[in-house]
Amino acid sequence: MKIGVFDSGFGGLTVLRALMERIPEAEYLYLGDTARLPYGAKSRATVARYAASSARFLVDEGAEFLVIACNTASALALDAIQAAAPVPVLGVVETGANAAEASSATRDVMVIATAATVESHAYAAACSARGLRVIEKACPLLVPLVEEGWIEHPVTTEVLRIYLAELMEQARAAELKPDTLVLGCTHYPLLRAQIERAVPEALRVIDSAAVTAVQVERRLDIPRGVADPAGPARFFATDSVAKFRVLGSRFLGRAIEGVELVDLGS
Amino acid sequence: MKIGVFDSGFGGLTVLRALMERIPEAEYLYLGDTARLPYGAKSRATVARYAASSARFLVDEGAEFLVIACNTASALALDAIQAAAPVPVLGVVETGANAAEASSATRDVMVIATAATVESHAYAAACSARGLRVIEKACPLLVPLVEEGWIEHPVTTEVLRIYLAELMEQARAAELKPDTLVLGCTHYPLLRAQIERAVPEALRVIDSAAVTAVQVERRLDIPRGVADPAGPARFFATDSVAKFRVLGSRFLGRAIEGVELVDLGS
Repeated sequence: MKIGVFDSGFGGLTVLRALMERIPEAEYLYLGDTARLPYGAKSRATVARYAASSARFLVDEGAEFLVIACNTASALALDAIQAAAPVPVLGVVETGANAAEASSATRDVMVIATAATVESHAYAAACSARGLRVIEKACPLLVPLVEEGWIEHPVTTEVLRIYLAELMEQARAAELKPDTLVLGCTHYPLLRAQIERAVPEALRVIDSAAVTAVQVERRLDIPRGVADPAGPARFFATDSVAKFRVLGSRFLGRAIEGVELVDLGS
Repeated sequence: MKIGVFDSGFGGLTVLRALMERIPEAEYLYLGDTARLPYGAKSRATVARYAASSARFLVDEGAEFLVIACNTASALALDAIQAAAPVPVLGVVETGANAAEASSATRDVMVIATAATVESHAYAAACSARGLRVIEKACPLLVPLVEEGWIEHPVTTEVLRIYLAELMEQARAAELKPDTLVLGCTHYPLLRAQIERAVPEALRVIDSAAVTAVQVERRLDIPRGVADPAGPARFFATDSVAKFRVLGSRFLGRAIEGVELVDLGS
């Protein structure tokens, strides 16, 4: 089974990492559309065009199942991707909302994400469709802090304290009783331990990379057998191969050797 | 006199602000190529193509002088812009290096900028060409901190303290005696007061927005007369007009009313 994982950058490598740990029997193709990122500021039509061409590339390379690890593409272009790719497609917004639905007893949940994801209200729509009330908050400093490598760092602790206090205040003002916090950005799993320490113990933290891997496993019927714990993977990027290799290794939790440069046009 | 100011985003509005204060007699056209930002991760050919089309747009709208307020475009595409636009062109890397040359007695200078600008080594090249020795440091958290509005904020104070300590350490390790610090990013003038408080008093801080305005004034022969202190200006953006208006007003230091959306292709 070949699973294709797509993101606008290398953040989606946290999803690939969770998949490789959960389903080591599969082969993986990862495409980071680094030349055309960030998708967040672009129109729906442009994101749909970029995502569809990326999905087609992965299917042409043999992907039999697609995981859309890009929040913006999941939010704006899942239909376009599904139309362009004749294989099953699962997106991280959907899997995050599914997990929030399964987790929440109070039916009140909170989502933290990038400004672009929050402005799209994709998680709000997906959560509302599942009967959940939801508070969203943009946390624009978290991605640059992760990319700076400041994971266990006092500045990050302080930034998280401020953002999470503002989030709790938003929930109080809306008279919600959230019991679940969704990490709605593929960079945030690297901050999961820090975030769990910063929130009340009763609050369940949903790491969308981890829950995506669980849901992909459920959807697939993979013959479990001799596991290759490393999981063979190929990496493709549309630009900045060097940055992809350096930063990507941190996200994947292991060295990325070869990154193949591909041209998907503009 | 119509002056066109070009940036990939709205950071260049700090340059426009300095120009409007310095030369209130001129008319201004500002173009933020927000649909295609960030330029920093793109190849030289792509940046040159984008910047040339943006420059042509401003000339078609009547610009008689162009200020390239985008560090990446100044670094990678000044020739392409000059070839595309039949008017004088001045870029912020050039003006920053000129000011560093005029300021430094020790001939050792430091530059802080975004990762993309530092990786281009544009300031290093421009400073070396002027006989200066130079230390460059990428400060990737400063732009998101400014965009978050955390200007006079304890987190920003701490991030600046860390970055500037690392920079001083780099200078010590290289056995340089820098007396000048160039702010090599159009977002940084908003942090100028904070930065001046954080560095030794003897270190001169060069704000590339302010020095660009001085050098444009020197290059132009503008009839000084009845000044319109508001300075008539038109604003163009290729995407996200709303974000441009909100964030841009902070950079310009006054409200931006109308932003015209333009399509320069892809």
